[in-house]
Amino acid sequence: MTLTPEQQAEIEAQRARTQPTFRATAPGIEAHLYRAQPVLDHGFVRVVDYMGDDAAIVQAARVSYGAGTKHVSNDEGLIRYLMRHWHSTPFEMCEIKLHVKLPVFVARQWIRHRTANVNEYSARYSILDREFYVPAPDALAAQSTVNNQGRGEVLQGEEAERVLRWLRDDAMQAYDHYEEMLSQEGQQGLARELARMNLPASVYTQWYWKTDLHNLFHFLRLRADAHAQYEIRVYADAIAAMVRDWVPAAYAAFEDYRMGGATLSSRALDCIRRMLAGEEVTQENSGMSKGEWREFEAVLHP
Amino acid sequence: MTLTPEQQAEIEAQRARTQPTFRATAPGIEAHLYRAQPVLDHGFVRVVDYMGDDAAIVQAARVSYGAGTKHVSNDEGLIRYLMRHWHSTPFEMCEIKLHVKLPVFVARQWIRHRTANVNEYSARYSILDREFYVPAPDALAAQSTVNNQGRGEVLQGEEAERVLRWLRDDAMQAYDHYEEMLSQEGQQGLARELARMNLPASVYTQWYWKTDLHNLFHFLRLRADAHAQYEIRVYADAIAAMVRDWVPAAYAAFEDYRMGGATLSSRALDCIRRMLAGEEVTQENSGMSKGEWREFEAVLHP
Amino acid sequence: MTLTPEQQAEIEAQRARTQPTFRATAPGIEAHLYRAQPVLDHGFVRVVDYMGDDAAIVQAARVSYGAGTKHVSNDEGLIRYLMRHWHSTPFEMCEIKLHVKLPVFVARQWIRHRTANVNEYSARYSILDREFYVPAPDALAAQSTVNNQGRGEVLQGEEAERVLRWLRDDAMQAYDHYEEMLSQEGQQGLARELARMNLPASVYTQWYWKTDLHNLFHFLRLRADAHAQYEIRVYADAIAAMVRDWVPAAYAAFEDYRMGGATLSSRALDCIRRMLAGEEVTQENSGMSKGEWREFEAVLHP
Amino acid sequence: MTLTPEQQAEIEAQRARTQPTFRATAPGIEAHLYRAQPVLDHGFVRVVDYMGDDAAIVQAARVSYGAGTKHVSNDEGLIRYLMRHWHSTPFEMCEIKLHVKLPVFVARQWIRHRTANVNEYSARYSILDREFYVPAPDALAAQSTVNNQGRGEVLQGEEAERVLRWLRDDAMQAYDHYEEMLSQEGQQGLARELARMNLPASVYTQWYWKTDLHNLFHFLRLRADAHAQYEIRVYADAIAAMVRDWVPAAYAAFEDYRMGGATLSSRALDCIRRMLAGEEVTQENSGMSKGEWREFEAVLHP
Repeated sequence: MTLTPEQQAEIEAQRARTQPTFRATAPGIEAHLYRAQPVLDHGFVRVVDYMGDDAAIVQAARVSYGAGTKHVSNDEGLIRYLMRHWHSTPFEMCEIKLHVKLPVFVARQWIRHRTANVNEYSARYSILDREFYVPAPDALAAQSTVNNQGRGEVLQGEEAERVLRWLRDDAMQAYDHYEEMLSQEGQQGLARELARMNLPASVYTQWYWKTDLHNLFHFLRLRADAHAQYEIRVYADAIAAMVRDWVPAAYAAFEDYRMGGATLSSRALDCIRRMLAGEEVTQENSGMSKGEWREFEAVLHP
Repeated sequence: MTLTPEQQAEIEAQRARTQPTFRATAPGIEAHLYRAQPVLDHGFVRVVDYMGDDAAIVQAARVSYGAGTKHVSNDEGLIRYLMRHWHSTPFEMCEIKLHVKLPVFVARQWIRHRTANVNEYSARYSILDREFYVPAPDALAAQSTVNNQGRGEVLQGEEAERVLRWLRDDAMQAYDHYEEMLSQEGQQGLARELARMNLPASVYTQWYWKTDLHNLFHFLRLRADAHAQYEIRVYADAIAAMVRDWVPAAYAAFEDYRMGGATLSSRALDCIRRMLAGEEVTQENSGMSKGEWREFEAVLHP
Repeated sequence: MTLTPEQQAEIEAQRARTQPTFRATAPGIEAHLYRAQPVLDHGFVRVVDYMGDDAAIVQAARVSYGAGTKHVSNDEGLIRYLMRHWHSTPFEMCEIKLHVKLPVFVARQWIRHRTANVNEYSARYSILDREFYVPAPDALAAQSTVNNQGRGEVLQGEEAERVLRWLRDDAMQAYDHYEEMLSQEGQQGLARELARMNLPASVYTQWYWKTDLHNLFHFLRLRADAHAQYEIRVYADAIAAMVRDWVPAAYAAFEDYRMGGATLSSRALDCIRRMLAGEEVTQENSGMSKGEWREFEAVLHP
Repeated sequence: MTLTPEQQAEIEAQRARTQPTFRATAPGIEAHLYRAQPVLDHGFVRVVDYMGDDAAIVQAARVSYGAGTKHVSNDEGLIRYLMRHWHSTPFEMCEIKLHVKLPVFVARQWIRHRTANVNEYSARYSILDREFYVPAPDALAAQSTVNNQGRGEVLQGEEAERVLRWLRDDAMQAYDHYEEMLSQEGQQGLARELARMNLPASVYTQWYWKTDLHNLFHFLRLRADAHAQYEIRVYADAIAAMVRDWVPAAYAAFEDYRMGGATLSSRALDCIRRMLAGEEVTQENSGMSKGEWREFEAVLHP
């Protein structure tokens, strides 16, 4: 990550002094505010603003369920109850705003989560920087031979070198031409909105991204998952660490019920019941396809 | 409005001391925080939390448009530019959370604005209070004779008295029976989720409602409008006054371009051009229907 | 349900003849089109239009995953795979439009599902009919003594009679006054937008409701569930039966993975693993609260 | 545009015969179904499915406004009324599904419209084709000297040739390396999800995109506008032509009130009133900034 000196100075200015507020504050996330957490070779995530804390979730739930929430003895128990029963609206009462710098191909996956507010740097208006994602050697993975969307082993030797060279050199050449096409010295200069299309998907962009805690948890469940592409997972991991500091009780419930949990089908539950009754259950007599059975086994024997 | 002593004490406790925060704060809205602004006979609106301020809108716009925003000399000018050109995403970077107490028939209009987060008091879980909206005498309007959805003159004399008596007595009787049906003394007691259906739409409910500034402006444009039903307009007006204190530059732009502005059709613009060229334009030669022409005249001669 | 003769005639006219179309058609749902399926005492659900079928889900998935979907041998297998892995976007490619007549208190629960398009009958513009939901004797349930939001046994004898009488008589009286307040004979007549607030939540309203299959499944999972209020569950059940005929493969996958499935927490999965390894697991050594354990047991021994 | 022989055959098969349906059909759009309308050098738009027609808008409005709609004499008049008064929900009752092939940089603008369902071709699973957008000579515009986001004159001579050569050659070289990195001959082969990031934003992707008519009109207003980037505008124009054939009355109202209309601010309306009263109004005494005044003049004298 390369923060410019201006950005560094701005962050320090923003953290130089606090303001008094009547609002709920969450000390755990205050410590993160504005600071850039490095991700990949040039990217970062930083919290720019937040609304609410664990208590705000409880407060909203008590408005909804009124006296009905009294039998749950404490806030943590109520939050676990809400998470377990898919009561999502109280979690929507917390909001977070992030500033993210990320490669375009990661941004394209990310934006598929539609329930969020986004302001992205516009390459129609402005000129992109010469910054491209080039994987670290241990992230340079081969295509999986068993999974169409997965990665296999790390590339080695000459193949790895060749790939890295191409990724780097093609990006540099594209950027050289981008600059030369834009140049207005001795020529008119191509429109920015056209020139940008010469740049590869490894180029970095940045945006402000704002979402509520319920939708953020949904994002994290999909993107911090082992099946997510590594390059988006590292962003999800960085955000997850911030959320843990922001709303510790909600995050703990999320980890237990979502990240560490599993949804089992009717057939799978039936197999478990038969197993517990002492029956020998195999794929053949399970009613599941081979793929389903493999996934089911992975849940039982992780 | 009747705040319970517990609510009053809670508000005072919340306003007793501030917390330090690194976040952006908006002094104008801090003054409102938690305080209940009375609306109608038993309702209120109060700000429970907020995120962002005028500067947050500008900040997001500068991320998007980068150097492209430099030619706008100041924040207010940029905010006006964004509003004029329907650049809605920077306004989405501000968020507000309100606690509202309101009659059910108002809540039913309100909820049609879908881009918001809501936690409503649940009458399945809890028992509603004996509070019903009964219009003040000057809000007791007759059906409009020209507009299917509008109001005419204020009812007078015996008719007014009769209407008020029915609204009040039917509500009281329904609530008496609601209580008696729920009672578990000497009987089983009807389920809350069933008993509530005896209560009229004038009964008060309450919710936490959270939305972003862009969607809030859309809500205000429709609901603070002269054509909105009076009983929701007073809520919109109360919220508008808070928003003015929260983001003064954005609110001023909203007032100029949305509340005070008008969208003119291609035909209407053509008529204006002909008028400015000295032509006599009438409904007959305008290409507009009578209804359109009446609305057009109201824009020209308000 | 009381369809008016005009409605009945309209339905017959709409079903009198077909039109040719190049679009995908789903014979199973064509048989339902326009026909009103009675629900509760005066309500109904009817399919007014639909887009797509099982094949449309597969088609969209193959656009997304291209060659990646080739290894799944058939459409049904691919649909099961998509459902199991929470790939929701292909299911969003199907859309359905329903006309629903329902009591207001049911409408208020229903509308909390925000990702849908709604056109509701407006009582600001028009006059509501004298139709109110009065539970059948076997739906007249007591408040649950163990669950704040649940129902207990069915009310009997005098208590049941009293409740039914109040529900019926209060509604009738409220409607009498509604009519008298609106009347313009010998008086001005109260505005419709005000008069309607005298009517109880048991009054029937109606709307057109349009949503995509992914969001419809989410609605059905929550509202066709045993914990949903009976009065909304009967609507969900009626819709589910139509969806089964519309997209049989998708519905079968939904039943297996969602309706009949369960999401188990990290702790619950751990308990299952310990049980399968022969350990005696009890609530005390499970790490779960009593409530969680009770729900876990219900999954293992339904 | 290059449709593969397989695609061509599929389209012909889909258009070979019709199915009978009880649903509303719109003959104007049936003629378009499945057929690919060429856009840019390799792109296309085609309608894959639709729901509803002009009558469906009217039908939904009459459910909402009941007797309140009776005074509008005909469907076209009612549709104009709905559009003029921003009653958006009846327009949401129509839905369209498009299959679009488009360059990635266009897709990135398009996806900012969040209220739609999308299934995009996944370059994690599958291999992209060697197809890149290269502007036609008359679309090769210079950067505007007055507008940060606009285009100036068309590039000429050597500069034009150089730009075209770079756009073409860089894309070809990037694709050569993409293929070589993916190759599993004599090497492991880089994971697809990584290799794709070498491709420039001019590469073509494709998706199924489904949205309702209200949101489609919003898309068209912004993207068929003169200020939209040419490369997305041609898609919007192609879609607009299809919509005109689908819902002619709604499209005509959209053209009059939205595309050909203008939203004037409170200040602008005030200036018009002063002008009509004979006053000489200039930028200096208008209360508008220079930018606003320029835009205002453009409305008055297009």
